Amino acid sequence: MTMRYQAGTTGVVVQNIERADQTVIDGLAECGVATVHEAQGRRGLLADYMTPIYSGARVAGSAVTILSPPCDNWMIHVAIEQLQAGDIMVLGTFTPSNAGYFGDLLATSAMTRGCRGLIIDGGVRDVRDLTEMGFPVWSKAVHAQGTIKETLGSVNVPVVCAEALINPGDVVVADDDGVCVVRREDAADVLEKARAREANEADKRARFEAGELGLDIYDMRDRLAEKGLKYV
Amino acid sequence: MTMRYQAGTTGVVVQNIERADQTVIDGLAECGVATVHEAQGRRGLLADYMTPIYSGARVAGSAVTILSPPCDNWMIHVAIEQLQAGDIMVLGTFTPSNAGYFGDLLATSAMTRGCRGLIIDGGVRDVRDLTEMGFPVWSKAVHAQGTIKETLGSVNVPVVCAEALINPGDVVVADDDGVCVVRREDAADVLEKARAREANEADKRARFEAGELGLDIYDMRDRLAEKGLKYV
Amino acid sequence: MTMRYQAGTTGVVVQNIERADQTVIDGLAECGVATVHEAQGRRGLLADYMTPIYSGARVAGSAVTILSPPCDNWMIHVAIEQLQAGDIMVLGTFTPSNAGYFGDLLATSAMTRGCRGLIIDGGVRDVRDLTEMGFPVWSKAVHAQGTIKETLGSVNVPVVCAEALINPGDVVVADDDGVCVVRREDAADVLEKARAREANEADKRARFEAGELGLDIYDMRDRLAEKGLKYV
Amino acid sequence: MTMRYQAGTTGVVVQNIERADQTVIDGLAECGVATVHEAQGRRGLLADYMTPIYSGARVAGSAVTILSPPCDNWMIHVAIEQLQAGDIMVLGTFTPSNAGYFGDLLATSAMTRGCRGLIIDGGVRDVRDLTEMGFPVWSKAVHAQGTIKETLGSVNVPVVCAEALINPGDVVVADDDGVCVVRREDAADVLEKARAREANEADKRARFEAGELGLDIYDMRDRLAEKGLKYV
Amino acid sequence: MTMRYQAGTTGVVVQNIERADQTVIDGLAECGVATVHEAQGRRGLLADYMTPIYSGARVAGSAVTILSPPCDNWMIHVAIEQLQAGDIMVLGTFTPSNAGYFGDLLATSAMTRGCRGLIIDGGVRDVRDLTEMGFPVWSKAVHAQGTIKETLGSVNVPVVCAEALINPGDVVVADDDGVCVVRREDAADVLEKARAREANEADKRARFEAGELGLDIYDMRDRLAEKGLKYV
Amino acid sequence: MTMRYQAGTTGVVVQNIERADQTVIDGLAECGVATVHEAQGRRGLLADYMTPIYSGARVAGSAVTILSPPCDNWMIHVAIEQLQAGDIMVLGTFTPSNAGYFGDLLATSAMTRGCRGLIIDGGVRDVRDLTEMGFPVWSKAVHAQGTIKETLGSVNVPVVCAEALINPGDVVVADDDGVCVVRREDAADVLEKARAREANEADKRARFEAGELGLDIYDMRDRLAEKGLKYV
Repeated sequence: MTMRYQAGTTGVVVQNIERADQTVIDGLAECGVATVHEAQGRRGLLADYMTPIYSGARVAGSAVTILSPPCDNWMIHVAIEQLQAGDIMVLGTFTPSNAGYFGDLLATSAMTRGCRGLIIDGGVRDVRDLTEMGFPVWSKAVHAQGTIKETLGSVNVPVVCAEALINPGDVVVADDDGVCVVRREDAADVLEKARAREANEADKRARFEAGELGLDIYDMRDRLAEKGLKYV
Repeated sequence: MTMRYQAGTTGVVVQNIERADQTVIDGLAECGVATVHEAQGRRGLLADYMTPIYSGARVAGSAVTILSPPCDNWMIHVAIEQLQAGDIMVLGTFTPSNAGYFGDLLATSAMTRGCRGLIIDGGVRDVRDLTEMGFPVWSKAVHAQGTIKETLGSVNVPVVCAEALINPGDVVVADDDGVCVVRREDAADVLEKARAREANEADKRARFEAGELGLDIYDMRDRLAEKGLKYV
Repeated sequence: MTMRYQAGTTGVVVQNIERADQTVIDGLAECGVATVHEAQGRRGLLADYMTPIYSGARVAGSAVTILSPPCDNWMIHVAIEQLQAGDIMVLGTFTPSNAGYFGDLLATSAMTRGCRGLIIDGGVRDVRDLTEMGFPVWSKAVHAQGTIKETLGSVNVPVVCAEALINPGDVVVADDDGVCVVRREDAADVLEKARAREANEADKRARFEAGELGLDIYDMRDRLAEKGLKYV
Repeated sequence: MTMRYQAGTTGVVVQNIERADQTVIDGLAECGVATVHEAQGRRGLLADYMTPIYSGARVAGSAVTILSPPCDNWMIHVAIEQLQAGDIMVLGTFTPSNAGYFGDLLATSAMTRGCRGLIIDGGVRDVRDLTEMGFPVWSKAVHAQGTIKETLGSVNVPVVCAEALINPGDVVVADDDGVCVVRREDAADVLEKARAREANEADKRARFEAGELGLDIYDMRDRLAEKGLKYV
Repeated sequence: MTMRYQAGTTGVVVQNIERADQTVIDGLAECGVATVHEAQGRRGLLADYMTPIYSGARVAGSAVTILSPPCDNWMIHVAIEQLQAGDIMVLGTFTPSNAGYFGDLLATSAMTRGCRGLIIDGGVRDVRDLTEMGFPVWSKAVHAQGTIKETLGSVNVPVVCAEALINPGDVVVADDDGVCVVRREDAADVLEKARAREANEADKRARFEAGELGLDIYDMRDRLAEKGLKYV
Repeated sequence: MTMRYQAGTTGVVVQNIERADQTVIDGLAECGVATVHEAQGRRGLLADYMTPIYSGARVAGSAVTILSPPCDNWMIHVAIEQLQAGDIMVLGTFTPSNAGYFGDLLATSAMTRGCRGLIIDGGVRDVRDLTEMGFPVWSKAVHAQGTIKETLGSVNVPVVCAEALINPGDVVVADDDGVCVVRREDAADVLEKARAREANEADKRARFEAGELGLDIYDMRDRLAEKGLKYV
């Protein structure tokens, strides 16, 4: 693979990024974070401190990445111009800050472009308005603290967000379980595996509902005995 | 009292544990965590980082304890076979991990056995499904991160969960205020005290509602003056 | 300005405090935390670890301040007698504690006096009851752990609560974005600025909804170019 | 008492502040944080996350207070001009940041003015150099992250630093146990009490060294028995 | 095994506890925490937030356990009377607190009885003095905050300290890597295994020093290949 | 730039990686973290929770990257075979764990290959031995907790370590201020800028030592006045 810019490059806006197929993206949203994460070999989860501002949202989209200085949200304005319908903004910072980089006006702007949500390794505010607008955000903090517009970052270079590397155009899946990134070039393959996993889980669920035990469904008894488990 | 196994013993599944009387357990659930905790002399609370995956649940049950290695949920499968109606699973680990040990399939299995919930000093996933299923979980984290099945722990030995010691068969009470453990042999006595406390609180509430002050209800004014409190 | 007592003074209850005009206070509640915080120059926010026990509340009130020893809620009883309709209790401690200082009985008492809520740099309990009663609390923790009544603190001296200094009679505004304090003597001026800001935001929102970009609304393009931002 | 400016006021440098008597300040340094804190009734401690960059320093000085925007150290330059021999800089921020506001060049400058140290509710860098220079710093973090010089704060207005309110000219005492603030006007009185406490402790220490127990030295046995303590 | 009291029992001082053989205890100290922890099957570690107040100490001793209310150090005075030469005090609390429960006077008293150190799930103060006295402490916090003497706890009942259960008379081993508990009745057996482990490690160290790789010493290459590891 | 593998790829050992010039690497070590970080435009710092196990070390080396499953240190053995003199191991994990992945035996092995240190987003143990051996480690935790050898990760693929992306062959600089990564291809250029910065700082230091103020050295007075700073 070839990347046009290093993670952490500042002062650049990459205008043309490749995106995964929209039906693949939508399929990944249906599968949800836990299934997608398993399907791609347990990679790609963001840190568990990322929480949704309201429960029940489940989305996927192409990452438009934003690299921001601490306490400075200038680059979000720059990023919104690059959004296409179906995108999700993903913001990482040079250094941690819980300031409130994003609120209802920026959400209004992003929604006019079809943006599906925001993943931000920092703070968000106006959460009551965002909830009413149905604009989902996964963040590290909720804080009203304002930000400034003084220093350049970048748009659409690779960023580290909540301990995961995210490239522009990667698929980001988010729900109540957290956030997971799927490499753009792997998205179709991961969807296929996630669908297979879902089918398998449906079968398993039926057996569990019928009262079968995991010990039997997964044939664990012999291996447990070998390891020396004693029933007393 | 006599314990059959030390806290931290691995490789053992204790199949027969004593449980408290079910009507006592149900009574403790009605009283809730704050009242039960007070009634037994302010003991038994789990750490305040334990939070419910959804609001409003209030349950009590007999603890089926699970000791798990970090990032390994094998013992949950073993534990489910030991569940009886009215039980609550309580999982402690050798060393902290926020991985997602438990999801909707395991919940399906546990519910077929009448399990009332899970208290886990670790992570949980599929929280949207668990919420829809009405299976309450109190956990340290929500994270989609998967776990492995490689190393033995134990079932029904004493475990430390969220900084509290829990013996198999102890009564666990959980609601929006957190989680509290009541020793099995103390359960009936604690219920009685909790009921008395509730009666007393109902009386106090009526007086508070009528506008009386705690200063007068609890006769605090003299003691405050003795300590030197000055009104200016 | 003149303060009658230093922050941290113990053993004193100040009975007469000045309050801001109630219509000003109510106006600040309508504006909400994020707007008020901006309007007064980004000052006065409490730490971002303060979270509401339920979503959707938005209140403002005159601070009746409480300085409490750790794990000791005696002063809350003293404070309730000082409450007037429209007040909010604000509790800071000598040293951090997550114990549950406040529950449904104290809320019952406070509500008879017209108290609008509690801001507490510590723990709260009975959150299910408080939610049903519609008594909003912003706290550092939810914990059932009880407190004692042994040591004096003060009522209506300046306190540090969640990293912010709050004087008795200051206006406290709280919603899902957190908590913000406005100096009593600045309240009317801040409200005026907040109203102006709201008017301006309504105008901006209309332009954003029409698809205009922040880059253009705020004339950012030249300055970004000067700073060296490159589009590629 | 009368304060010239509210905590949180920005854009102001107060040039003339009152300081406590230098022999009192030096006496407080000799007593150390734990003794001073007790002597003034257990008030004034900064949060326990404040740690020294090296062990063994014990200092006291008059607070030159600095209110800084997040990630912006401009006001430190302004503050250094206000330093007199025997002062300690105390920096609070509008909103938390662990960026490295202070390093060896600023320490060089501060030392030429006789500054005795820095208390910073943020980050510090060049700690190896600072250690070699013998310039003690108590901070929330060590981080090399640079700061900018864009936004005004203030010098010598009251600040909240590590959860404590500090007025310009207050006496700050710091050692391996943390940091404690003494109000300027109370300093002489607190020193007297601290000296008395030291004398008392010397006497107690001799008795402890001779093998007497606290149970007897402090006459605790009866009160323990009254409370119901049972020896078995 | 039989325990005389439940973990969490209050109001009791158990005067006669069994202790492990002193030569076994001293042997465990020589092995250190990492080796002892491995030798007993990776059980018994206290939480990683426990840190020594100074580097380089390595001790072991019989646990005299202390159960304390939050911010109340009364029971330490009671416990000191129960100390024998070779003991280590282990303090757990009902609910977390970082207050400074212990300082140089108590250390003076404990040292006259031959106490080897303190493990405290809370705060400690006077750390400069304690360091000079050579009295090692492992704690969750260093804080000068004083405690009161109002509420009973217990001495020599089982306690949860830093997420581990510790019975009176258990052997506690502590060094720069943290703290580990060994059940009294397992101590001799664990020492034997730890010695064997040390012998084995000495042999391994010689091979590593000679440049052999773990891949070969532990015969890992085939299993890595089986799992699918690719060298490219 | 072209990367052979995505961050997060498992099951791969890349045997030939490019390294920066050794004299450049050594030069960066001399400059230290704070200077290097500034010289490259304030990029590349790892999170501030990374702390050295002992003070005073200052090293730089070529990153041999290790991607590890949680609580599993198998890949460190694989990585050691890939080490060359002057390298530094950099370990990131799939999901956070504070277990002790690394101790004195692995350090012995790494030192025979000329390895200069370890940067690990997890735990380390045997820190007393590592300190005596002079093998510096920057880690998130010190914990004796052992790890297993069950699951593949990778060696020499890009990893996220402590919130920063690190490619194999990048230069890692570490000292008491933390850890900073410099892209391999930028190393010479960054060194040049760092040297220039040092020269400039030496000049500045002389002026500061002579008593000049930053206000004058950096010509700040006019801009402060423009912003509205008032001296009172």
